[in-house]
Amino acid sequence: MKRLDSVQSPEDLRKLPEEELVPLSGELREFIIDIVSAKEGHLGASLGVVELTIALHYVFNTPHDKLIWDVGHQAYGHKILTGRRTRFNTNRQFGGLSGFPKREESEFDAFGTGHSSTSISAIVGMALAARLKGDLEREHIAVIGDASIASGMAFEGLNHSGVLDANLLIILNDNAIGIDPSVGALKRYLTNVKKGTAKEENIFECLNFKYSGPIDGHDLPAVVDALRKMKEIKGPRLLHLITTKGKGLKQAEENQIVYHAPGRFDRKTGELTPSASSGLPLKYQDVFGKTLVELAEKNELIVGITPAMPTGSSLKFMMEAYPERAFDVGIAEQHAVTMAAGMAAEGLIPFCAIYSTFLQRAYDQVIHDVALQKLPVIFCIDRAGLVGQDGATHHGIYDLAYLRCIPNMTIFAPMDERELRNIMYTAQQGLENPLAIRYPRGKGVNQDWRTSFETIPLGSSRELVTGSSIAVLSIGHIGNEVTEVLNSLGNPKEIGHYDMRFVKPLDEARLLDIFSRYEKIVTLEDGCLSGGFGSAVLEFANIQKFTGRIHCLGIPDRFIEQGTVEELRKEAQIDQEAITRCLIQLLHEVR
Amino acid sequence: MKRLDSVQSPEDLRKLPEEELVPLSGELREFIIDIVSAKEGHLGASLGVVELTIALHYVFNTPHDKLIWDVGHQAYGHKILTGRRTRFNTNRQFGGLSGFPKREESEFDAFGTGHSSTSISAIVGMALAARLKGDLEREHIAVIGDASIASGMAFEGLNHSGVLDANLLIILNDNAIGIDPSVGALKRYLTNVKKGTAKEENIFECLNFKYSGPIDGHDLPAVVDALRKMKEIKGPRLLHLITTKGKGLKQAEENQIVYHAPGRFDRKTGELTPSASSGLPLKYQDVFGKTLVELAEKNELIVGITPAMPTGSSLKFMMEAYPERAFDVGIAEQHAVTMAAGMAAEGLIPFCAIYSTFLQRAYDQVIHDVALQKLPVIFCIDRAGLVGQDGATHHGIYDLAYLRCIPNMTIFAPMDERELRNIMYTAQQGLENPLAIRYPRGKGVNQDWRTSFETIPLGSSRELVTGSSIAVLSIGHIGNEVTEVLNSLGNPKEIGHYDMRFVKPLDEARLLDIFSRYEKIVTLEDGCLSGGFGSAVLEFANIQKFTGRIHCLGIPDRFIEQGTVEELRKEAQIDQEAITRCLIQLLHEVR
Repeated sequence: MKRLDSVQSPEDLRKLPEEELVPLSGELREFIIDIVSAKEGHLGASLGVVELTIALHYVFNTPHDKLIWDVGHQAYGHKILTGRRTRFNTNRQFGGLSGFPKREESEFDAFGTGHSSTSISAIVGMALAARLKGDLEREHIAVIGDASIASGMAFEGLNHSGVLDANLLIILNDNAIGIDPSVGALKRYLTNVKKGTAKEENIFECLNFKYSGPIDGHDLPAVVDALRKMKEIKGPRLLHLITTKGKGLKQAEENQIVYHAPGRFDRKTGELTPSASSGLPLKYQDVFGKTLVELAEKNELIVGITPAMPTGSSLKFMMEAYPERAFDVGIAEQHAVTMAAGMAAEGLIPFCAIYSTFLQRAYDQVIHDVALQKLPVIFCIDRAGLVGQDGATHHGIYDLAYLRCIPNMTIFAPMDERELRNIMYTAQQGLENPLAIRYPRGKGVNQDWRTSFETIPLGSSRELVTGSSIAVLSIGHIGNEVTEVLNSLGNPKEIGHYDMRFVKPLDEARLLDIFSRYEKIVTLEDGCLSGGFGSAVLEFANIQKFTGRIHCLGIPDRFIEQGTVEELRKEAQIDQEAITRCLIQLLHEVR
Repeated sequence: MKRLDSVQSPEDLRKLPEEELVPLSGELREFIIDIVSAKEGHLGASLGVVELTIALHYVFNTPHDKLIWDVGHQAYGHKILTGRRTRFNTNRQFGGLSGFPKREESEFDAFGTGHSSTSISAIVGMALAARLKGDLEREHIAVIGDASIASGMAFEGLNHSGVLDANLLIILNDNAIGIDPSVGALKRYLTNVKKGTAKEENIFECLNFKYSGPIDGHDLPAVVDALRKMKEIKGPRLLHLITTKGKGLKQAEENQIVYHAPGRFDRKTGELTPSASSGLPLKYQDVFGKTLVELAEKNELIVGITPAMPTGSSLKFMMEAYPERAFDVGIAEQHAVTMAAGMAAEGLIPFCAIYSTFLQRAYDQVIHDVALQKLPVIFCIDRAGLVGQDGATHHGIYDLAYLRCIPNMTIFAPMDERELRNIMYTAQQGLENPLAIRYPRGKGVNQDWRTSFETIPLGSSRELVTGSSIAVLSIGHIGNEVTEVLNSLGNPKEIGHYDMRFVKPLDEARLLDIFSRYEKIVTLEDGCLSGGFGSAVLEFANIQKFTGRIHCLGIPDRFIEQGTVEELRKEAQIDQEAITRCLIQLLHEVR
């Protein structure tokens, strides 16, 4: 890869004669496939913007000109061209490169991303800053996909920037797919634009953008040419590119959902490497998805909602079984939650599956539209806790804190698949309030996940092990670590273990019993310590004047980067080693 | 008001001959003016939809047909026509009618509102519920203003519903103003539509809506006619009405911002009743707005941002003084926060003024775009705590809990105007992290607000009164209540009082000193108890093994409705009486 090796920075790139760019794009594409096939990561999105990436850095004067990649999982080529090629094999690993643009990683990463649809707002802020500082030449570019531009936040950015006298270039990377295929009226409209069947005035022109396109985003000379033309114009502009997600790898083009983040694969044939992660135990996601179908079969009021994650959340099972009762609303968490509230107001039983980190996008709607009205929406909060390689932008570790302060909320975390099934079974029998069920990314613990259903009393807990002086109160799946630690310690008779199940309402009767019988309490959660489950126990213990010691294990007050879940739990001091250390110390104190 | 008196419900209304509607609209308008002039409340918005309100209930079969009022402050006519006329004089009062639609108040209030832009999502949920239940005739109507439809959430609703086969009628109530004049590219576009200068395809048609309009929303027969025509069509439709906010009261039409919620006024002349609330002490809002101008004069990097609340937040002072450095971005909290992050990334010093309850709309952006990147955005969180008559949808009581769990955040609450000025002065000197400054709606406490500036060390606190056994730790403006209580108790020597200033980071040195010198601690906050300031003190005290008693005063875990701030504080048990009761009990224990 002679050409790629010679590009240490965009400055080198800009010295290349234009005819070298197409061969360079081939090398860049190969390099991405080489690394991702071996090291895993996001594939399809970056393959789709190889030509655009080269053209942008070739035409514009980065990093002086500002370039923001929306979501950022398509920025691998950008990272490779901006001085990070030799470190790119550490992508998404503990201590390595982030899988997303990150300001502290490179001056070429103008703005960190991870969640979708932020790029327009951020670039508007930068463009206004340049204008105020009198830099009227600097260019400000946001690259955003058709799925992301349909999200409300992006519209807010377009609406504001359309009337600004600022240097702003939005590149609409239209491949008709996010992680799953794009949905909605805008997608339909863009399809009409591509077919030439849209009428005279473009929707972006309505919003006062100078529109150009659509052009073939894989025709590198055409993209370079289009960018040069856009560069000559000032004010808000939008360039519409048509690209193919997974471009250049046959399987990735043909199976775009799987090759979004395919795991390891054979870099020559493109065939997926069989993964240890298939087979039993099932992922919590699949238990959720299959259980929902099972319940929906008997309960016609059940509906399912996902904002753009049918595959990731496994709501796809419901969409396949009951297409008229399952809704992918696109990247629109706010709409998803309030639509669920509207459905619940009319007596339906909505299961609204949203990743913990993305539910942050619908926080006001949870409070204002759901909880305040006591509407029994069932939030299935996926990817709660530390998620691993996606890193700081994607950990779902604030949900217990930000939901716990909301009146009328019930918050449950299943310790295993049976608990998840049973709470779903319980929920669809009818609730008087909203319910949040939070579970982690990945596998459960049981081989026989398809257990018969039992009702879980709201606010109940489970005594797993009776002890005499030290009570460990865990919430959710991480309780399984306690079970293993106790086994490894020889199940000391002093230590009791309680799966508290509900962060809200707490099982107060159980806690009063524990306060009366134990002198030391350990709380354990896969979430932030500030305001979380442990904090709830402290609040209740304080009211009850509990005089024993409480030791709270959870995620400390700092952002945690990427790595395996095991590595990150170790860093957060909620791994088996940390639990063991804590318990040994307490045993020492009580013995 | 013979006609109005005869309308006990929309059923009565529908029995009237059509020619009676125009005279009825006059009576309804007079009735609204009568009550609001005497009892205060939102005026202009309801006056603008008198004809629409009558026409909707006349043409459609409410409550079977579902009708949702976006924001809901324009729903006074709706309330009066739907059985609440005789109780309407209790509007916004403690124990009275809510100033917004509310499900538990009437079956005609299909969905509770308060925050903007939720109506489309909610009505979509209801329309889908009807379709699933096989009710293909029921109509689903959302009335939404031009300022609200420009918010991202509304776009998400439009984008999803445009491709649905559901009975959905969006009424765009276009009066070119929210509380302040509407802004943005969509507003400009709608102006072109009204002038007939927009090109061929309408933006709503692009999104697959059947569009009709614009028509004069005060021409009642025309509105009735248009609604009847829309009723004959199925699927997603949008009717564009042009209305005048404040219609029918000269002053309200001419000064739409002031007459949005004018306080008391002479119902005949329209003249405002001079209010005790003008004069000194100033409102915190004005101290904020004037101080920002003062600082901006010397520091060119300062910019101000508001999402649609220039008047309410007093950012208008900055907009007048430095129009190129102050931005009203419309109802777009998400965009406002991430745009501020983009500006901070480029070295500007953005003061982003957002009401506490509306910052819930930008929660993900605070975490993901600001805090994670350590961008020094200064959040001026207005209307924090209990806000009074706007009620449950508007209290700003979750901010301390939902911000405290975010790493890198600094959270400050000024006890008085001087503290507010000094923290703003401190912030603009340069920060390494974002800062949240939360202050209440309404007046400060000092006559001489324009004090000289002093730097406040981050994480510091103030000892106001030294005591011997009971330490009261207050946060923010509510600390003044403690001062008054201590005075009324004769300043007992046992009781110390500390203005903690920062919820995060806590002044740990101070707390360690307090733990060593006091046996009882009382925490007081104008925010929710779950996860709030008191909870932070409990967490730290637990780590430090403090063995004394901590008593947390704050808002209990339930939604608080409308009333005066005094009434609501009493209900929440954070008024002077409750503080006194708590302190007398503790004095009794220590003496």
